[in-house]
Amino acid sequence: MTAVNDPLATDLSTPVTDDEIFLAHEGGKLDISVPRSITDSRALSIAYTPGVAKVSRAIAQDASLVTKYTWTSRLVAVVSDGTAVLGLGDIGPRASLPVMEGKAALFKTFGGLNSIPLVLDTTDVDEIVETLVRLRPSFGAVNLEDVAAPRCFELEKRLIEALDCPVMHDDQHGTAIILLAALRGANAVRDKAMADQRIVIAGAGASGVACANILLSAGAGDVTVLDSRGILHDGRDGMNPVKAELATRTNKAGLRGGIAEAMKGADVFVGLSGSTIAEDLVATMAGDSAVFALSNPDPEILPDVARRHAAVVATGRSDYPNQINNSLAFPGVFRGALDAGARRITEHMKLAAAEAIAAVAAEDLSADYIVPSAVDPRVAPEVAAAVARAAKEDGVA
Amino acid sequence: MTAVNDPLATDLSTPVTDDEIFLAHEGGKLDISVPRSITDSRALSIAYTPGVAKVSRAIAQDASLVTKYTWTSRLVAVVSDGTAVLGLGDIGPRASLPVMEGKAALFKTFGGLNSIPLVLDTTDVDEIVETLVRLRPSFGAVNLEDVAAPRCFELEKRLIEALDCPVMHDDQHGTAIILLAALRGANAVRDKAMADQRIVIAGAGASGVACANILLSAGAGDVTVLDSRGILHDGRDGMNPVKAELATRTNKAGLRGGIAEAMKGADVFVGLSGSTIAEDLVATMAGDSAVFALSNPDPEILPDVARRHAAVVATGRSDYPNQINNSLAFPGVFRGALDAGARRITEHMKLAAAEAIAAVAAEDLSADYIVPSAVDPRVAPEVAAAVARAAKEDGVA
Repeated sequence: MTAVNDPLATDLSTPVTDDEIFLAHEGGKLDISVPRSITDSRALSIAYTPGVAKVSRAIAQDASLVTKYTWTSRLVAVVSDGTAVLGLGDIGPRASLPVMEGKAALFKTFGGLNSIPLVLDTTDVDEIVETLVRLRPSFGAVNLEDVAAPRCFELEKRLIEALDCPVMHDDQHGTAIILLAALRGANAVRDKAMADQRIVIAGAGASGVACANILLSAGAGDVTVLDSRGILHDGRDGMNPVKAELATRTNKAGLRGGIAEAMKGADVFVGLSGSTIAEDLVATMAGDSAVFALSNPDPEILPDVARRHAAVVATGRSDYPNQINNSLAFPGVFRGALDAGARRITEHMKLAAAEAIAAVAAEDLSADYIVPSAVDPRVAPEVAAAVARAAKEDGVA
Repeated sequence: MTAVNDPLATDLSTPVTDDEIFLAHEGGKLDISVPRSITDSRALSIAYTPGVAKVSRAIAQDASLVTKYTWTSRLVAVVSDGTAVLGLGDIGPRASLPVMEGKAALFKTFGGLNSIPLVLDTTDVDEIVETLVRLRPSFGAVNLEDVAAPRCFELEKRLIEALDCPVMHDDQHGTAIILLAALRGANAVRDKAMADQRIVIAGAGASGVACANILLSAGAGDVTVLDSRGILHDGRDGMNPVKAELATRTNKAGLRGGIAEAMKGADVFVGLSGSTIAEDLVATMAGDSAVFALSNPDPEILPDVARRHAAVVATGRSDYPNQINNSLAFPGVFRGALDAGARRITEHMKLAAAEAIAAVAAEDLSADYIVPSAVDPRVAPEVAAAVARAAKEDGVA
């Protein structure tokens, strides 16, 4: 384990090779383990026939006992159709599996939760919802992952309606939570208030939309969102319904045009588009600006270049300071929701998660440390506690 | 671990209490583990972003790599709708979960395979098939479990047609395999040939039908099957299509009537009906008979009573000699099928499994030891090797 404040101290000193990556994936990244050994007849007669019949009969008589006597109440299904995997796009369910296994491994490592990848050979929203409704008794929560926008918005909404358990599309809300946490840190370092800044978000896909929403919920004064055609504004053409609705709640300044118009005088830039941004444009931002160049593996602008003009720079990468990685969010969010027995994940629970992450970093803040390290073990328990508290306050637990 | 030949030596000396059973089920019986730790940034960058993208891209380019770089090729989905759980009947998917978790635990313990319970909130065959087809990229094989007859026959058939991976309804074939193995042992002890005996099977549900089929495949000369209305014979009324078809291939002696008519002069009795059988009837069997009273938890007749008339007696229970437990079969069957990369499980593979189990017991056979102990660690590897060999011989691998 590296020092909490400096994940780069020792463990990235040797470059990661392709051979090393493939070797670490052989046989997959997950295993089932059996906490109570059943290698003798007595244990077998307890865990299997005839003993198990007593437990099954008890659950048949009182369905609520399923949470106590099965693994499902602490089991997250990591669900994907493989249509928007990392920066790779629509590579299908099989090729998405290593990502889902990685996610499940992180759930265990940081959240202490069990998790199974369920990848689907359909991209039809009705079919995915139907499939998970049928499987509902098998798990306790759904982490939706790597589903392409704008379908992901409808799918998440439909699943939340159809399932009486926590459902969260992590590409949207995990990213949004950690961005908000990091912006809190960046604001403190730069002595800026959320309400007084103009924030530009490049990218109106899953994460862009969710980031805009959480920042608005958290009191951001002016958020401007761009898609590949430019700034979203009320009445613009070429917008899907999600963008059109977002346009009515953003761009208070009434800007028109593209990235150059948006960046001029902006306080915060959030890159979630997979494109690049020229140094010239960063130079036009307001003083003491913050740049979140979050595209992976290639940030919109290299941190060293952005830093010439911005007071704080963050990326999605582990080999630069200020890594914005949603692994800081989802393990604790689901752990807190399941600990509380929450039936869904509210906006308040997401905000509470972000504040909890920000609080862990708060004591040691600097321009190069606006969020905790992605492997800081203090984060998930704090997030879980805050999320569970918020769930109870919201009456969803 | 108890002695291989005597599972009862020490570990059942103290009775199992209800408290002990429920305590052993708290939180469920399965856990996810992460074989390669990801608690530092370097490991995170290998197992998750950005490293994992290389593996996903490789699978996107060559789908066959999914077997090498994910856990799915060694992952068995234990699938149930909870309609025929142990002796408890249709208690639903949630109440069936402890059984499915137990099954998954046995897959790991004896077969070294990963396994996840998928319990379904539907009993519709079309919907179950559709659901598993959509989930196909998530697993490497399907163990169908505790689905009521006669629906289980159609469901298994449809799944085998729809999925390009091993599918087996264990209540049918796991039971059949271990019964055949045990009968081989009983035949050797009694010096009887399979072809020369008349075998009575009481019960024409999932396991009764499968047992009849495997015994016929293994050279049984005369098998007579009964349901609750009596002996199945060609032209009898009140038979579902599965029973009607079975009637054309069984009851060579052309018997009519009920259990009394069937038992008189029979060499082997196999009880799979959940009912009882009177000592008087066992007394009418041929000399050197074998009684398999397999209903759980209450055998059709107590072993001590049956033993007054029969040369060999077996039950499903761990507290009597000769426990007929399908945990001797399914871990090795699936392990062998997956090791071989088999696309399905053939009759030959099931027969090979039975012979492999019988071979483990062969050296130490006695009237009280016709099969290995249910926890004998030698069995699953032998079964796996035999099944894999048979798969290759059959050209399904």
